[in-house]
Amino acid sequence: MTHLDANRRDDDAPLPKVVIIGAGFGGLAAAKTLARAPVRVTVIDRRNHHLFQPLLYQVATAGLAPNQIATPIRAIVRKQKNAHVALGMVEGIDTANKAVMLGAGRVSYDYLIVATGARHAYFGHDEWERFAPGLKTLEDATEQRKRILLAFERAELEDDPAERARLTTFIVIGGGPTGVETAGAIAELAKKALARDYRRIDPKSARIVLIEAATRLLGAFPEDLSEHARRALEKLGVEVRLGHAVTDVDEEGVTLGDEGIDSRTVIWAAGVQSSPAARWLDISADRAGRAIIDADLRAPGHDEIFVIGDCAAVNDANGKPLPGVAPVAKQQGAYAARAILAAVKGERLDKPFRYVDYGNLATVGRQAAIADFRGFHLKGFIGWLVWCAAHIYYLIGFKNRIAVALDWTWSYLTFERGARLITGDVVTEAPYHRDKREAA
Amino acid sequence: MTHLDANRRDDDAPLPKVVIIGAGFGGLAAAKTLARAPVRVTVIDRRNHHLFQPLLYQVATAGLAPNQIATPIRAIVRKQKNAHVALGMVEGIDTANKAVMLGAGRVSYDYLIVATGARHAYFGHDEWERFAPGLKTLEDATEQRKRILLAFERAELEDDPAERARLTTFIVIGGGPTGVETAGAIAELAKKALARDYRRIDPKSARIVLIEAATRLLGAFPEDLSEHARRALEKLGVEVRLGHAVTDVDEEGVTLGDEGIDSRTVIWAAGVQSSPAARWLDISADRAGRAIIDADLRAPGHDEIFVIGDCAAVNDANGKPLPGVAPVAKQQGAYAARAILAAVKGERLDKPFRYVDYGNLATVGRQAAIADFRGFHLKGFIGWLVWCAAHIYYLIGFKNRIAVALDWTWSYLTFERGARLITGDVVTEAPYHRDKREAA
Repeated sequence: MTHLDANRRDDDAPLPKVVIIGAGFGGLAAAKTLARAPVRVTVIDRRNHHLFQPLLYQVATAGLAPNQIATPIRAIVRKQKNAHVALGMVEGIDTANKAVMLGAGRVSYDYLIVATGARHAYFGHDEWERFAPGLKTLEDATEQRKRILLAFERAELEDDPAERARLTTFIVIGGGPTGVETAGAIAELAKKALARDYRRIDPKSARIVLIEAATRLLGAFPEDLSEHARRALEKLGVEVRLGHAVTDVDEEGVTLGDEGIDSRTVIWAAGVQSSPAARWLDISADRAGRAIIDADLRAPGHDEIFVIGDCAAVNDANGKPLPGVAPVAKQQGAYAARAILAAVKGERLDKPFRYVDYGNLATVGRQAAIADFRGFHLKGFIGWLVWCAAHIYYLIGFKNRIAVALDWTWSYLTFERGARLITGDVVTEAPYHRDKREAA
Repeated sequence: MTHLDANRRDDDAPLPKVVIIGAGFGGLAAAKTLARAPVRVTVIDRRNHHLFQPLLYQVATAGLAPNQIATPIRAIVRKQKNAHVALGMVEGIDTANKAVMLGAGRVSYDYLIVATGARHAYFGHDEWERFAPGLKTLEDATEQRKRILLAFERAELEDDPAERARLTTFIVIGGGPTGVETAGAIAELAKKALARDYRRIDPKSARIVLIEAATRLLGAFPEDLSEHARRALEKLGVEVRLGHAVTDVDEEGVTLGDEGIDSRTVIWAAGVQSSPAARWLDISADRAGRAIIDADLRAPGHDEIFVIGDCAAVNDANGKPLPGVAPVAKQQGAYAARAILAAVKGERLDKPFRYVDYGNLATVGRQAAIADFRGFHLKGFIGWLVWCAAHIYYLIGFKNRIAVALDWTWSYLTFERGARLITGDVVTEAPYHRDKREAA
């Protein structure tokens, strides 16, 4: 039996208990804001590590290793004396008795911050996931890395030209930052890092297709930067298909209305679905499953519960939904923590949450990034340097910063990829492909 | 259909075909020796990477990340124009028609080098594997890392003192180099790196037990160095149990005759079994399954087939079996390659294979290593520096050397562990433990 409130050796004082579910950007910002406060903080996560999700596509495309973008949660909060960490899968929230249900145990709270994020979603086509996996966890990333690298390996052994073409065609669905960055990274992997590694196929002739249903890439950016990103991708050899909605995905590839594009490696970067925070709290959700909360981030009817980050639906001053990005989650985490500190003192913050947008960054391979800082636009190499600096700066953990900087410098100078490992079950055919052959 | 001899774009000359199965130390040494020879080399492996196995225990104990000890085979042989790589699982060898059977395809050869290594073995107790996994692949290592780290996480949430003690007891079975190095590394992980990370348990009080059936550790070393290693381990807090044979392993721990030691995390480092090279070639094998071959490493009855490394049983000049270590495999690989070069010219090497033993190294945590260079013994800090230098020197890939050196310097200065990730399915209970609870 697990009962986190019993048998503590470091704390018998009746401090208010703040429980944070999720050690993403939002949850950790909340924990940090509470560092010196007279509260007891418990961070619950089903992973033992915080993940720097903005660089996950680099793991999926063999540019970085998993440990370079992940840091153990315990190491992050080690020096925060009032912080505890519990590794476990949340099964529900007992709001009546103020407890989080964690497997066989319960963790009781006085204040609760729900920051459980989102997963990728398929708009009612869950059957596509098998053929077009998404990218949210380290396991997703190493699985994608395996699929991409195995496709080249299988192509090298393949005699049928049509099958070889299918194997060296890579389709990325979704023209947001993840899709754009992934497509650019696959193009560089194929055309630079792998170029000299095969004897029978020419990885440089790989076909990379990026599909977006809207009429431009990166809808959150100004139009001139979207256009710049499209041109940069095309310069890298990526086919950008705008205004095309995917109508089917199967083991043979992707269908766009009347057109079929054959491919054995399809990557989904088109949509997300919130974690079940709203369901746990029994409150309303928007279409993406995000909890609809009050302007001070409190769950309606639960003054002691806050919902933040990708699982919360919050609008900006113009009534436009805030995007699911790290800065929003971090600012919300800090706000919720401050609101809890006020409540502990019997006070209430006098202003609702307001997001301050410092800027927006995306990259398209080496030397081409776009940045929008409140209307000040950066492109090309300067944009790329700013992007590198910002991402390295925000990577948690001093050593990770050095290791990533070393890796990027290395990649920059040599076009080499540092993390080209295929781990997990190794088969020269993708599982669904094998099933088909066995059935045939 | 796969047929590696067809459709080559770079090579139509009828060069002799040398096929090497296995890209370990032996296979790669053979490939390298053939670099400028007038032959076509094909390296077959079921992984896309060469693994630096001597450091695998560092991955299992969260000291290094997988990509730091693994290098893509294609990257290693990239500049070797006559080398081809095929990723696939060998299913057998058709010696009559001189072809390796690789899934649906065949790879024909004029000369064959079998260098498929060994797996850990349980001396007829395969049922122990579930509770005491071994260490031969990157997946083994990340699985062990997960078990070790999850044991601490589960202990932190556990209220029952007896179960908490079981969870913080780690047993390593086997007192050879892998067992000694693993036990030392777990002790340092628990007593240094994790020491400040938990709030309810004290990782420093973790119990680490190393069990060896013989009367001393590291049987391949001189007695004074064995004794030094034992004392160094005990200084780190490891209980060394010599002269104890394991009679049972189950989910509750390990049984040594009348004595039971409770533990939820048992690691097997006690024995290896050869890959099925002898069976594929239909030749005799010794008790460990290693192919019994001629003094010139040829398979009896097959002048064109060589067996090298951990899957070959070869004796030294005194009739003592050669150990399964990297230097033996490398020298055998080079010898087999030279024998093939001679055969291509219609000649034959005039000397049988003779192993030159330059020395033996093992480490026991920080600052304590032992080295035996032809009777010249090194211990302690100097031994450790020599061990570090030797291992970093032999790591394939310039960047890996820098990354590992950086990581070790970092670990040395901070006692921090760079690779403390739990990946794969995350549960707070080990699978077998959960099964039991569900059944209860």
